[in-house]
Amino acid sequence: MSAALHPRGVFCAALTPLGEDLAPDHARFTAHCRRLLEEGCDGIALLGTTGEANSFSTGERQALLEAAVAAGIAPERLLPGTGVAALTETVALTRHALSLGVTTVVMLPPFYYKGVSDDGVFASYAEVIERVADPRLRVVLYHIPQFSAVPLTFPVIERLRERFPGTFTGIKDSAGDLAHMEALVERFPGLAVLAGADPLMLPLLRRGGAGCITATSNLVAADLAFVFRHFSDPARAAEVEAAQARVVAARNQASRFAQMASLKTLLAARLDDAGWTRMRPPMLPLPAEEAAALLAP
Amino acid sequence: MSAALHPRGVFCAALTPLGEDLAPDHARFTAHCRRLLEEGCDGIALLGTTGEANSFSTGERQALLEAAVAAGIAPERLLPGTGVAALTETVALTRHALSLGVTTVVMLPPFYYKGVSDDGVFASYAEVIERVADPRLRVVLYHIPQFSAVPLTFPVIERLRERFPGTFTGIKDSAGDLAHMEALVERFPGLAVLAGADPLMLPLLRRGGAGCITATSNLVAADLAFVFRHFSDPARAAEVEAAQARVVAARNQASRFAQMASLKTLLAARLDDAGWTRMRPPMLPLPAEEAAALLAP
Repeated sequence: MSAALHPRGVFCAALTPLGEDLAPDHARFTAHCRRLLEEGCDGIALLGTTGEANSFSTGERQALLEAAVAAGIAPERLLPGTGVAALTETVALTRHALSLGVTTVVMLPPFYYKGVSDDGVFASYAEVIERVADPRLRVVLYHIPQFSAVPLTFPVIERLRERFPGTFTGIKDSAGDLAHMEALVERFPGLAVLAGADPLMLPLLRRGGAGCITATSNLVAADLAFVFRHFSDPARAAEVEAAQARVVAARNQASRFAQMASLKTLLAARLDDAGWTRMRPPMLPLPAEEAAALLAP
Repeated sequence: MSAALHPRGVFCAALTPLGEDLAPDHARFTAHCRRLLEEGCDGIALLGTTGEANSFSTGERQALLEAAVAAGIAPERLLPGTGVAALTETVALTRHALSLGVTTVVMLPPFYYKGVSDDGVFASYAEVIERVADPRLRVVLYHIPQFSAVPLTFPVIERLRERFPGTFTGIKDSAGDLAHMEALVERFPGLAVLAGADPLMLPLLRRGGAGCITATSNLVAADLAFVFRHFSDPARAAEVEAAQARVVAARNQASRFAQMASLKTLLAARLDDAGWTRMRPPMLPLPAEEAAALLAP
């Protein structure tokens, strides 16, 4: 059963490097994607929360995805976020991905209106699927109530999977609650449940989860990939434990100050490329004193 | 002092009628705008929360504003919402409004990321103003934490007004707390504080407020306009009280079920035009039984 889950593996919620004009820097980005795949990521979940996607225009998002494909990254390894507040823009972004051969997308619910009914959330996704009308499409639902403020309830997931068999194949659960992820695995056999927090991938895999889409993998992709590939091998238990410990340590380090800015700071230091620290408002780079504390040996 | 406030008066947070394809219906919309102005509104705050703006694409928003201008509605009476999640789209929408001669806009802070610092909110607005770079621009800040989840704090307002004198002339306060509106009036002389809730316009005017941008004015524009024009005239006190009572009653009626859907249902009934009830997901029309209860005599 588990082998049929889609998507399955370690996917990096890729950071988006910016140029001096605070626009996505395509060259730095595609180099980062290649590095992540070389380190063992199964794919790149670009244009998500960690990637500052909702601070970019539709055109900027499309151009970044085109750049990744043009750089030779296999479309089946790209999982772009295409869910935005406006129904018609979600449709446009999803169609655009499909036009590039990118068939699996991560889709937020519309996130401006709050207190939306389950009927409203269902109708939003249903309307998108019907308008896109492409049987190739595979959607990873995106449950991240701390940002979207629109949780994806079990009844909504159930209705969507019943109404569109084969379309809603996965869910990224970024709420940070392992029990919720486990409940998803139990309630929806065949649904690929992906942890949104790096330390939780391992316990979730042990319960039948499909992997992760996470932020710290920008830094520790090799360790996460190792955990994913060997977690069930008793002969590698000690190595898995050591890799998991490094993942947890990296996550804790990146959570001491603002997470996304911290990840960019740490990556900039590793690559010796100060340009990587830029962020687009409302996100800001770490203040100098925090950056210094973060990077202190 | 009060006469110099800008904007000042009764502005309708206009509903957006939709066609069968759930796209904005320009003909119904411009007819609605004309009716609102005839009923006494000083202007139309289109493309706001009540207008479902964040469910429309950038192109749909621009087309609706163009339709209003093309229909002969004076640009100085139009206050479109131009603040979205993506910095570059906020810039594009604001520039587009200016290109049509529409110089006063209502601007949400970027609303995807939560827990954003004051520095981040300030940087967002500052970057927009610097990129738009048009001295004609007048911005009404939009404080609606129950939807944006990004409150506009007093220090941010102060910094923006100091850094861009003459640009941030107003604030729409939709948090529903009269004490907060009064505190804004007191703290920022010269700032046009506009109530986001119809019943609160009158008490706010008595404390030096500038008027309102409200949803119920889609139904009771004449009464609100009467209250605005005569609230300080002792000879009209009884009439003002009666008009205010009708405003409060309409607001209460529209708040019994989902507010935006209720307003569309009530307007559809008044105009005998069922097409007015359509909403774009995630918003949905009232269920039939709620609509019947709402319209029961």
